[in-house]
Amino acid sequence: MFRGGAVLRKVRQFIMQHNLISPGELVVVGVSGGPDSVALLHLLHLLGKEEGFSIHAAHLNHGLRPEAEEEEVFVRELAKSLGLGCTVDRAKVREEARAGRRSVEEAGRQARYAFFIRVAEELKADKVATAHHMGDQAETVLMHLLRGSGLKGLGGMSPRRGILIRPFLTVTRTDIMSYLEENRLDYCLDASNYDWDYLRNRIRHQLIPLLEKEYNPNIVASLCQLATVARDEDMVLEEMAVKAFKEIARPDQGGLVLNLETMQVLPVAVQRRVILLALKQLGGEQGWEMKDVQSVLELAQKAGSDKHICVGKNIWANKSYGRIIVRVGREKTRPFRYFLEIPGKTYIEEIRAELVCYLRKREDVWPSWDSVCLDWDKLKKPLEVRSRRPGDRFRPLGLGGTKKLQDFLVDCKVPVEQRDRVGILACEDEIYWVIGYRLDERAVIDDTTKRVLVVEIRKKQTH
Amino acid sequence: MFRGGAVLRKVRQFIMQHNLISPGELVVVGVSGGPDSVALLHLLHLLGKEEGFSIHAAHLNHGLRPEAEEEEVFVRELAKSLGLGCTVDRAKVREEARAGRRSVEEAGRQARYAFFIRVAEELKADKVATAHHMGDQAETVLMHLLRGSGLKGLGGMSPRRGILIRPFLTVTRTDIMSYLEENRLDYCLDASNYDWDYLRNRIRHQLIPLLEKEYNPNIVASLCQLATVARDEDMVLEEMAVKAFKEIARPDQGGLVLNLETMQVLPVAVQRRVILLALKQLGGEQGWEMKDVQSVLELAQKAGSDKHICVGKNIWANKSYGRIIVRVGREKTRPFRYFLEIPGKTYIEEIRAELVCYLRKREDVWPSWDSVCLDWDKLKKPLEVRSRRPGDRFRPLGLGGTKKLQDFLVDCKVPVEQRDRVGILACEDEIYWVIGYRLDERAVIDDTTKRVLVVEIRKKQTH
Repeated sequence: MFRGGAVLRKVRQFIMQHNLISPGELVVVGVSGGPDSVALLHLLHLLGKEEGFSIHAAHLNHGLRPEAEEEEVFVRELAKSLGLGCTVDRAKVREEARAGRRSVEEAGRQARYAFFIRVAEELKADKVATAHHMGDQAETVLMHLLRGSGLKGLGGMSPRRGILIRPFLTVTRTDIMSYLEENRLDYCLDASNYDWDYLRNRIRHQLIPLLEKEYNPNIVASLCQLATVARDEDMVLEEMAVKAFKEIARPDQGGLVLNLETMQVLPVAVQRRVILLALKQLGGEQGWEMKDVQSVLELAQKAGSDKHICVGKNIWANKSYGRIIVRVGREKTRPFRYFLEIPGKTYIEEIRAELVCYLRKREDVWPSWDSVCLDWDKLKKPLEVRSRRPGDRFRPLGLGGTKKLQDFLVDCKVPVEQRDRVGILACEDEIYWVIGYRLDERAVIDDTTKRVLVVEIRKKQTH
Repeated sequence: MFRGGAVLRKVRQFIMQHNLISPGELVVVGVSGGPDSVALLHLLHLLGKEEGFSIHAAHLNHGLRPEAEEEEVFVRELAKSLGLGCTVDRAKVREEARAGRRSVEEAGRQARYAFFIRVAEELKADKVATAHHMGDQAETVLMHLLRGSGLKGLGGMSPRRGILIRPFLTVTRTDIMSYLEENRLDYCLDASNYDWDYLRNRIRHQLIPLLEKEYNPNIVASLCQLATVARDEDMVLEEMAVKAFKEIARPDQGGLVLNLETMQVLPVAVQRRVILLALKQLGGEQGWEMKDVQSVLELAQKAGSDKHICVGKNIWANKSYGRIIVRVGREKTRPFRYFLEIPGKTYIEEIRAELVCYLRKREDVWPSWDSVCLDWDKLKKPLEVRSRRPGDRFRPLGLGGTKKLQDFLVDCKVPVEQRDRVGILACEDEIYWVIGYRLDERAVIDDTTKRVLVVEIRKKQTH
């Protein structure tokens, strides 16, 4: 009969509650040799015998401190004494940190997780267990809180994420120390110190003790409870947001187009999360702050159109006619001008379309959905397709007069950043066709027409 | 042209964003004479002239400190200098605290709000404004966090709650001080000190400065942003929970009965909130902690039935056949015994029913849905209706043998706390009818029956 039964019961219940390990599985346990991971290895080994799962130890020698060699030997011996397999590797953390321009702590963390996952893959193991406990969780919650986190950060570490499990998130540092004592287990002091970055270190040794002494002796448990609740509530809201995102956002115009009408009937909390999903999809997971989301939200709520903001990370958002368009980079279009091949094909990169032109006699022309007809003899030559120019005017068919092209495009609700990509079939300043929008009265075929210029538009698919 | 335009713009935008004041309204401003409330009065006065709303000052003299008289005079003069109406009253806060067994700070707070609301009612005012700013908000969030709050607490103070508005939740203490300076406004030092309870005081003077210096110089803004997000997210979840509560909970058995089948398909985060709503409905708004909710949730998740727990505040929860019954007090039923009036009516308090008994000849009896018939000549006398006793057995009709009453009730899924309230028609130990459940074989009428005892049950409606 071993000791520390209370801790074991707690962990067993936690494992069941969160479905962390099933019978028959193989669990790789990350062991630094410090108290937490030694207790975890020992406890999971015992529990595995009862519940029918297997354990394998994994130790990464960071080579950072003189004691690293001793620690490696210690972990090997510990695994051996429990009759467990053990995989050990060495990392060049300092070099990796320098190469990746990260802190040594961050590089160490990444190397460690990569190693554990690698061992799990090699052994075809089902889970990787780490020894994070309630104290670590409280620190994580405070770190996020101090950095200005939303609900997601307050959720702290999850008991399970993919194959990664944290069976000790239910026990305190004190629980672990008494488990070690009752089972007379040795451990290496400071072996897990590489897990402390500077901020975490100060939170652990300064802030939490202060909060415990002066504000709430149970602050660790309170923060862990907050984490549990926040994680569960976050999950509900995230599910709502993902569902809403699918309705609101569609990929278009080289980015994401959010339909404001659909979005703005939702609670503002869900709108924020939809915007965050859009930012993540375009700009990556990490580093978005509430102020970024807020700036897009404010853009959405502002009256008027055609406002642009840079959200950060070269992500631009633009409000335009009931939509928010989020894209990487602010769209810039250079002026363009192509002379048309007649007969022939002219590909126009800026409008992503090929214009196929040919001449026909009036009597040989039949209306078609993908072509337009112009009166060849009324047109000045040479014909070109170009982007708009300041002062452009034309005589939109059906209007009975001239109109500024600018005003016409506004009336057609062409987003401002799209206007420079509208193709104009013209000869110099005489516009015959605003491609995709309207013919000019002067180019239209009538009873006097003899020869017809047929222009077919072939849109190139964008992927 | 007055100064401090940036602060005014910020507050104006905040008022519009949260729809705090509409043109034509009258706003009572609580003024202690301290910097925050002096700035608020001045700023709202200016804004009111622009936006068309009116201001009235209200000051409660707490009579706690020697300066109280000076402060009262100061506020009167300030209001007068701005051409504003001003209502002043005096409170006996120390006496009220003693009588209500509250801290002086808490009694002061309550007296103040009650006074402001009273003034608003007398003047038929539309709003009551207080001068809580971002610093106060950050303190509130930290207080809740340190006490172990969920999402609701992290939401801090709302910009608007009923007629109460807080237009300064968008500005910092520094904003306020520069506003005062730029407008050359005097104020009383420490006039709002009565608003500091001990914990808030320490958070303000110890914890926030430490967090600002060592962890995050923008901690106040971060916590305020968290509050905004948490409040909005809380609102979404609360709406879901209230909707779910209506489906899951119904008042019954002197408490609330929660349908577990309906509840357990919901996300655990919503389940927690449904439980909290139940606890609040029975035990009042204040003082519920996550551990109380958690204990009910664990009860719901446990296998088996008939478990009781005391949640706190004399609220008991009981799991029973796919339901959680939450009620005030643990139900205790004393044994009961009534002799039946035959013919006549016998009211049995414990089963909340009246039994109407009469005798008929066999041929005069017709089956009826609200009565049972027993063979009068087979029954021992005198007949009684009593609660169950240990060792009770009977011969349930259709079973063809004897059965323990206890087992029978279990088979019928009668909740354990209901079993002592089942009425048994018997003569001493010979049971003829488990009222509402089953007749005994020995009491059933057959071909030999001559006289029939008819018993009608008249349930008393419970309200």
